[in-house]
Amino acid sequence: MTATKRTAAVKKSEIKNTEVKAPAAKAPAANSPRAKGAAAKATAVKVPVAREPDRTADRPARRPWERAIIESVTPQVDGGRFPAKRSVGDTVTVEADAFTDGHDVPRCILKHRYADEQSWTEIEMVALGNDRWRGQFKVDRLGRYHYTVTAWVDRFLTWRHDFKRRLEPADIETALQSGAQIVRDAAARASGEDAQRLTRLAQSLLAPDDFTRRQTLGASQELADAMSLYPDRSHAAEHERELTIVVEPVLARYSTWYELFPRSAAPEGGRHGTFRDCITRLPAVAKMGFDILYLPPIHPIGRIQRKGPNNSLVAGPDDPGSPWAIGADEGGHLAIHPQLGTPEEFRALVAAANALGIEIALDIAFQCAPDHPYVKAHPQWFQWRPDGTVQYAENPPKKYQDIYPFDFENEDWQGLFEELKGIFLHWIGQGVTVFRVDNPHTKPFALWEWLIAEIKKDHPETIFLAEAFTRPRVMHRLAKLGYSQSYTYFTWRNTKAELVEYATEVTQHRSREYFRPNFWPNTPDILPEYLQLGGRASFMTRLVLAATITANYGIYGPAFELLEHQPRSPGSEEYLDSEKYQIRHRDQSQPHSLTDFITRVNRIRRDNPALQDNWNLSFCPVDNDAIICYVKATEDCDNVVIIAVNLDPHHTQSGWVDLPLDDIGVKPGTGFQVHDLLADHRYLWTGARNFLQLDPGRSPAHIFLLRKQIRSEQDFDYFL
Amino acid sequence: MTATKRTAAVKKSEIKNTEVKAPAAKAPAANSPRAKGAAAKATAVKVPVAREPDRTADRPARRPWERAIIESVTPQVDGGRFPAKRSVGDTVTVEADAFTDGHDVPRCILKHRYADEQSWTEIEMVALGNDRWRGQFKVDRLGRYHYTVTAWVDRFLTWRHDFKRRLEPADIETALQSGAQIVRDAAARASGEDAQRLTRLAQSLLAPDDFTRRQTLGASQELADAMSLYPDRSHAAEHERELTIVVEPVLARYSTWYELFPRSAAPEGGRHGTFRDCITRLPAVAKMGFDILYLPPIHPIGRIQRKGPNNSLVAGPDDPGSPWAIGADEGGHLAIHPQLGTPEEFRALVAAANALGIEIALDIAFQCAPDHPYVKAHPQWFQWRPDGTVQYAENPPKKYQDIYPFDFENEDWQGLFEELKGIFLHWIGQGVTVFRVDNPHTKPFALWEWLIAEIKKDHPETIFLAEAFTRPRVMHRLAKLGYSQSYTYFTWRNTKAELVEYATEVTQHRSREYFRPNFWPNTPDILPEYLQLGGRASFMTRLVLAATITANYGIYGPAFELLEHQPRSPGSEEYLDSEKYQIRHRDQSQPHSLTDFITRVNRIRRDNPALQDNWNLSFCPVDNDAIICYVKATEDCDNVVIIAVNLDPHHTQSGWVDLPLDDIGVKPGTGFQVHDLLADHRYLWTGARNFLQLDPGRSPAHIFLLRKQIRSEQDFDYFL
Repeated sequence: MTATKRTAAVKKSEIKNTEVKAPAAKAPAANSPRAKGAAAKATAVKVPVAREPDRTADRPARRPWERAIIESVTPQVDGGRFPAKRSVGDTVTVEADAFTDGHDVPRCILKHRYADEQSWTEIEMVALGNDRWRGQFKVDRLGRYHYTVTAWVDRFLTWRHDFKRRLEPADIETALQSGAQIVRDAAARASGEDAQRLTRLAQSLLAPDDFTRRQTLGASQELADAMSLYPDRSHAAEHERELTIVVEPVLARYSTWYELFPRSAAPEGGRHGTFRDCITRLPAVAKMGFDILYLPPIHPIGRIQRKGPNNSLVAGPDDPGSPWAIGADEGGHLAIHPQLGTPEEFRALVAAANALGIEIALDIAFQCAPDHPYVKAHPQWFQWRPDGTVQYAENPPKKYQDIYPFDFENEDWQGLFEELKGIFLHWIGQGVTVFRVDNPHTKPFALWEWLIAEIKKDHPETIFLAEAFTRPRVMHRLAKLGYSQSYTYFTWRNTKAELVEYATEVTQHRSREYFRPNFWPNTPDILPEYLQLGGRASFMTRLVLAATITANYGIYGPAFELLEHQPRSPGSEEYLDSEKYQIRHRDQSQPHSLTDFITRVNRIRRDNPALQDNWNLSFCPVDNDAIICYVKATEDCDNVVIIAVNLDPHHTQSGWVDLPLDDIGVKPGTGFQVHDLLADHRYLWTGARNFLQLDPGRSPAHIFLLRKQIRSEQDFDYFL
Repeated sequence: MTATKRTAAVKKSEIKNTEVKAPAAKAPAANSPRAKGAAAKATAVKVPVAREPDRTADRPARRPWERAIIESVTPQVDGGRFPAKRSVGDTVTVEADAFTDGHDVPRCILKHRYADEQSWTEIEMVALGNDRWRGQFKVDRLGRYHYTVTAWVDRFLTWRHDFKRRLEPADIETALQSGAQIVRDAAARASGEDAQRLTRLAQSLLAPDDFTRRQTLGASQELADAMSLYPDRSHAAEHERELTIVVEPVLARYSTWYELFPRSAAPEGGRHGTFRDCITRLPAVAKMGFDILYLPPIHPIGRIQRKGPNNSLVAGPDDPGSPWAIGADEGGHLAIHPQLGTPEEFRALVAAANALGIEIALDIAFQCAPDHPYVKAHPQWFQWRPDGTVQYAENPPKKYQDIYPFDFENEDWQGLFEELKGIFLHWIGQGVTVFRVDNPHTKPFALWEWLIAEIKKDHPETIFLAEAFTRPRVMHRLAKLGYSQSYTYFTWRNTKAELVEYATEVTQHRSREYFRPNFWPNTPDILPEYLQLGGRASFMTRLVLAATITANYGIYGPAFELLEHQPRSPGSEEYLDSEKYQIRHRDQSQPHSLTDFITRVNRIRRDNPALQDNWNLSFCPVDNDAIICYVKATEDCDNVVIIAVNLDPHHTQSGWVDLPLDDIGVKPGTGFQVHDLLADHRYLWTGARNFLQLDPGRSPAHIFLLRKQIRSEQDFDYFL
């Protein structure tokens, strides 16, 4: 683990981003970076975007002079077929292998631009050793950025490298002559003052007097700086593909979801909850520290084949049905279930939420109840059975007669695509920017790639969460196609081995470039066995794990904070009396509620930037398999959080942990304090190996903030 | 190690290669696979090569029906930019992720063809689970093969999957109707007897009587077989790139090299060796078991700036100079050094070698002595210094005044490229098919990609070994560009940790698709410290390692078998009195010669197919770091070789090894015999954990052949 982390997380200080001083072509004097004082503090250079030439690479022998090779550019998803993802304010680290034949010296440039920019910004890449290069740029706008890498064999740098190693005066004299020619060639590429300066430098290399002075000039930084502005890039190689970064809101990387059935939101029992009730509940949700309030579908619910409580096949007259059976006489995906409220009230909910720093997330489920208006208005969008009825959803022998799926293989697929896009646009018009998409894996991949890109063109602020609990390749494909976040298998990963393997996969594997995991301890569809049997401690354990392993997590409440754990039947993961089929009323003020604990955990997430990222996760060995321990640290180690969780909800467990002191910025031999932000306890630790003991009856977890450079008693004696 | 091997080596028996019975389009009856009896024993189907359409993949929303996704096709080098390598007779295993949205059933086909074939051969790929598919084809011709993968959502298979799970008669009746339509559609794609048959089947599905019989027919293999020939492929997805395999001779994968300076080949001292002397030595080389005899450059040697013994700057009148200082009045790269013999004698050497199963490998070094005819005839091919002299090779402050490198960045580069290609063609004309290319990393990459491809067009039997002892990325690039084999860092990997890491890298990393390592314990340039200090045992150790870790290895003899170990100076890796600068005469019959040991090792390589491949290597844990142990096994475990080597040349070492019995086909609880083919000793072992003891004074290595199913004493008592 430690080794992985050390490789993955390179300190910012190791990268010296000297921005390139080399314009692609002869620059007019007024526009010259030199003229702008580039030598003092280089500003990024803008270079016009050249249309990409036909890149059959160096296959034919037609470009023997294009000697630089560029390989293995990262980030890169499927060879550039898909964009990598970042969020606003991120620094993008681009690396590439770049090298050439022989011993000549290559120069390597990172080019980047915002999608609509007509010119590239160029950054000099820094050699990391072993022909690997690195450059960085910051993405501060929503939308798409492009980047690529160019490299060439630099004639001047090669000359300089050799020149500094020459020993014999005759060789140095000859080299000064060839060097002067290289400088004159650069002068010809420059203009104005720069050209004059380079010409003077070339002359000085050849001046008849003072050999030592000329030798010094040849190796000088002054000459190198002047030359770096005007390299000969006529044989530069360019990476064969422009690569893309999609930049999304910070909320795509770091978000805290709370799922709530509005119809159960009434404070008093016996009536259907409303958007107004949700508004009333908002302060409590905000106080707990959630920034996304996610509502199951809010549309009219079908009456035909409506399901009753606990998914029974026959509904009584007062049964509300499943919100996922969308569409009735009152309307379809653009309409609001009348009992929830009006469009005005919905917009009021959005406004009230936003005022508290909360986004409303809607559940978009592309399926219809039999009485959805689409069925009559667009019969071509459905599959018709030989008996003249519409094909309902099924997975034989299971049948879902209350749901009609769309048949995307219909002749009017374009009409259907446009209609579905319109659904998102409609709700964006109502102030919604976050969408949880139901079962996206049962709709064509082509729909999602097109739809998300289309919407993000005008609304790059939107976030899409894929609810695809399916096979890994399919989940990954959806993420590549544009989904900002993805549900995961976390819900079923309970043991330390399972958690370490899975968390390492989703945070350290190269798929992290596009797949942002969102960990949920429960959902309305999933009451995992661990929560059914583990009692209060199991809820705390799963919450801490979800909230600290990944920066995006969510819970389905109030079932979660009220510790609901009764399955519909033994062995089932369905909730008993699930809100999916009936309205539930709960006493929010039950004494066992985890509200305070959740509030504290979310507060810790907000206060500690290390918990707002996934890539910085690394596990620490503990000599007890019931205790899992991991570290999350910001790149500069300014913020280091150490999380230890007892996975056994029934017994106190203890063990020794080995901390990667080097990776978390603790100097060898110095003491440090770990401050448990959950219990507000502080411990003084020294060295890597430390003792942990966790009683699930009190708190099954520590979330330690590392406090370094403690002044010790010894220092006190000696230095004060 | 075991885990890696288990993943990499999949048993042939696991793959059931049912060749596809599906022609791409309506097939004429006479040509129908059915008509040829395809149902009984399917023959591969030939499908015309379609020109690849513009593949912007499923980006636009224009192909919602092309629902199958194909990803991660292997083998694949840099996204298909470079070919993978195989040798004649190999079975190519192609894998791909293929899946679709929803629960529909995809069908996945591997398409392959020899480069000049106008039609594809199609192979049905087999699902391995988790959306991974596999197909295989055999490459039995030298040259290039192309392959790609196509997949589609199969309407009939999806229908069948659901049909077999349906329980209710009404549902089954409805499904029979839709199934009949699918069969009728297939009938429309078929013709002749096939069409009639499908039409009859469709009718039978709808026949008014006997529900049970129709239900049975719907799920029957008979119907599935008939339908599999006529799938609807109109919405098939195709991998975005045709991938390529370069098929080389078996010798590219498994070869045993012996390097010899012909000028030292005279049996008596005091005269310049000749090709005739080499012919005399051939039987000894063949008897030792070598199949490639590699000669340093055989061209006239320059006289200007000629180097003397031990690389001294001034040569005496009788000093022969370095063979790598190529070219003099007598000629250049097409000529033969007169003292070696005539072109006729060279051809006689090639013929005599071939008759003994040996290929002659020539050293091609693209550089010139100052008196090479090129310098006058093509001054434009060299770099001229400001003082009017030609730029000699240098790596400041080092100078190599006896060598003029080509300046590839000259205007006549095409003339130079053609000339260099002509050098290879000339020697191919003389019967040479194996080339060891000197320092290819100091020539443009574009030269090699073009040159090797050009030569292989007409001479796919040629083999190129890259002598590039340089940085990893550069070595790998050369291999990607077409080099059949590569020198490696083996020469400097001595400890167990180093050897395990490096051998694992070159045999298990995905770069093995293109990088074939060739391990050399010594070369004329490298007398490693281990051999300088380790005595006879160190030579045996390094020989066994080189000969059994990789299928390609070589030695520089007779320096090797005569245990020459004196460096030019302490700390140097140069041989004292190196043959590079002087003629050496040796008594081949010295009693300490390793000739017999080498003969035995090479004989073991020939007898054991497991040693003729690299990919089948896996290391076994030994509780002593001085002993390294590894297993090589054929896929079917018919041939299993266990190698154990004591890396300490001075002391007896012992330890316990853990063998991966499962991977080498030993049933739990059964005894097995290991037969040391070096000492001809046999040991009876039981269980995974066994004792090893190796005395370097006797033999520092075991090469065990595993003999399974030993009849035990107990069996004797009970069963006879």
